[in-house]
Amino acid sequence: MEYYICIDIGGTNIRAALFPKGEIKPLFQERITTQGENQTAEERLVELIRRIWPQKNNVLAIVAAAPGYIDTQRGVILKAVNIPNWEDLPLKKNLERIFNTQVFLGNDARLAALGEWRYGAARGHHDVLYLTISTGIGGGVIINDQLLMGSQGIATELGHVVIQTGGEVCSCGHRGHLEALASGKSIAEYVRTRIAAGESSNLIGDKTISAKEIFQAAKKGDQLAIDAFKRAGEFLGIGVSNYLHIFNPSCVVLGGGVVQSGDLLMKPFRASLEEHVLDKEYLKKLTITTAQLGDNAGLIGGLVLIDLMIE
Amino acid sequence: MEYYICIDIGGTNIRAALFPKGEIKPLFQERITTQGENQTAEERLVELIRRIWPQKNNVLAIVAAAPGYIDTQRGVILKAVNIPNWEDLPLKKNLERIFNTQVFLGNDARLAALGEWRYGAARGHHDVLYLTISTGIGGGVIINDQLLMGSQGIATELGHVVIQTGGEVCSCGHRGHLEALASGKSIAEYVRTRIAAGESSNLIGDKTISAKEIFQAAKKGDQLAIDAFKRAGEFLGIGVSNYLHIFNPSCVVLGGGVVQSGDLLMKPFRASLEEHVLDKEYLKKLTITTAQLGDNAGLIGGLVLIDLMIE
Repeated sequence: MEYYICIDIGGTNIRAALFPKGEIKPLFQERITTQGENQTAEERLVELIRRIWPQKNNVLAIVAAAPGYIDTQRGVILKAVNIPNWEDLPLKKNLERIFNTQVFLGNDARLAALGEWRYGAARGHHDVLYLTISTGIGGGVIINDQLLMGSQGIATELGHVVIQTGGEVCSCGHRGHLEALASGKSIAEYVRTRIAAGESSNLIGDKTISAKEIFQAAKKGDQLAIDAFKRAGEFLGIGVSNYLHIFNPSCVVLGGGVVQSGDLLMKPFRASLEEHVLDKEYLKKLTITTAQLGDNAGLIGGLVLIDLMIE
Repeated sequence: MEYYICIDIGGTNIRAALFPKGEIKPLFQERITTQGENQTAEERLVELIRRIWPQKNNVLAIVAAAPGYIDTQRGVILKAVNIPNWEDLPLKKNLERIFNTQVFLGNDARLAALGEWRYGAARGHHDVLYLTISTGIGGGVIINDQLLMGSQGIATELGHVVIQTGGEVCSCGHRGHLEALASGKSIAEYVRTRIAAGESSNLIGDKTISAKEIFQAAKKGDQLAIDAFKRAGEFLGIGVSNYLHIFNPSCVVLGGGVVQSGDLLMKPFRASLEEHVLDKEYLKKLTITTAQLGDNAGLIGGLVLIDLMIE
């Protein structure tokens, strides 16, 4: 049997999965922390690959997903988000030298889009908008059965677009981005700000408050918590309506933890989308759905990338 | 000799040009008003085509550019902007029946993008963002040498995206669109509003004031006029930075009358673009240029569309 190794590199953990060729269920998965004592993140990554490497040494390719700007053509991480010192890192070349097999790199959200398109919620569609809404907002776009990469491979930074000039500060430092208004982090930030301004809530608006806790409070009827999801849903509707006008997809897939909150987010989202869309044509044949592949979307998308790159 | 007939349908005039096969300079051009006494716009269009029709009857194809939502695959005008009653109009079928030759339809801004890409300012680039800034804002996008059409052919309504939630009212009725903040109409609207609020200016802020007059006043040093272009340029920088994050093009082409105002618009535009771009990577290899084909961009883009559709 021959194998692919798919890796998902995050700021906290690195996950690796071993896929038998032709399958989308991994045989093994391993996970280690991204930062280790006296080891760089790259050394941790190499250690993880060694751990999951099959005894028979028959790995056809390695594919790694990472957050940030990645030049997929050259296999260089231009700048990773959350991983210090990963700038202009020729990771493809480095890993190919060590493991003597083909290596591919991709942005994690774009690989997740590929996964959902080929094997998940957007199967059968040719034009797909994928957005993942968790702490931040990322995305990927399929146009005419091809992944939108851009001239340098850094297209579809879909969370980092201004929808409110001069608005809230984003994780990237700019203002009014979709991510600053509709992400999990922005939901927590909104609740913190409102509590600091004296609004009553059962929540304690300290620095550790998470979108998950706010979700729990909303389910128990806390009005501030409900408002926070409503506001995020409304901004998400504005962001998605923009993308309908830009891409005219036939399928929108929403992934990420925040989408798990269901109607709390989705009802105001849908109302906002209908309000902001330019013309009913954009919604007429549109499927809006949640992601199906969960945490494995990026890993499975890695398999699709290999397939596209080797073709 | 064989010919193509390219038509540009506007709310005021319809233009037609006769191109010998393989050439991008028209042999003749004709123009009539879109509305005539006792004639529908479609009848006017048919009359114009008859006038320019070559004696030897050897027309290989007709291509028509129109503003609005156009289903290029089916050749149906879903909804034309500025032309009353053009809804769900099967113009391809109607014209093919009358003229017995192939007919293609396309959105005017997207055809202009095709023209600039193949024969104009973006020659040699594979990933192009084209924006035309006149009364309104339209656009087209080339990705990997293909025109972005979307699942129904109504993608790249690039003027109708929210960049300021709750902001100024757009021509489409929605608020805070790029077109409502950076178009020629928005420049005039801004000057009118400021004069109505008592601001001093050499301009008379009545309903007929145009971006052209404001441009003339700005050249003579009128501060309000200068501010109006500065503001539009700043919003344009925000809009274009969004599109860099979304498409990562290697070339941005700016067309339309407002761009003719030069540094008045372009200096604040460039400063705003640099301020709002997420990472210097997006600008590193980017060419920003003005359109080269002028009023003929849509007609010449029609030739490119024919080429792509017949291929």
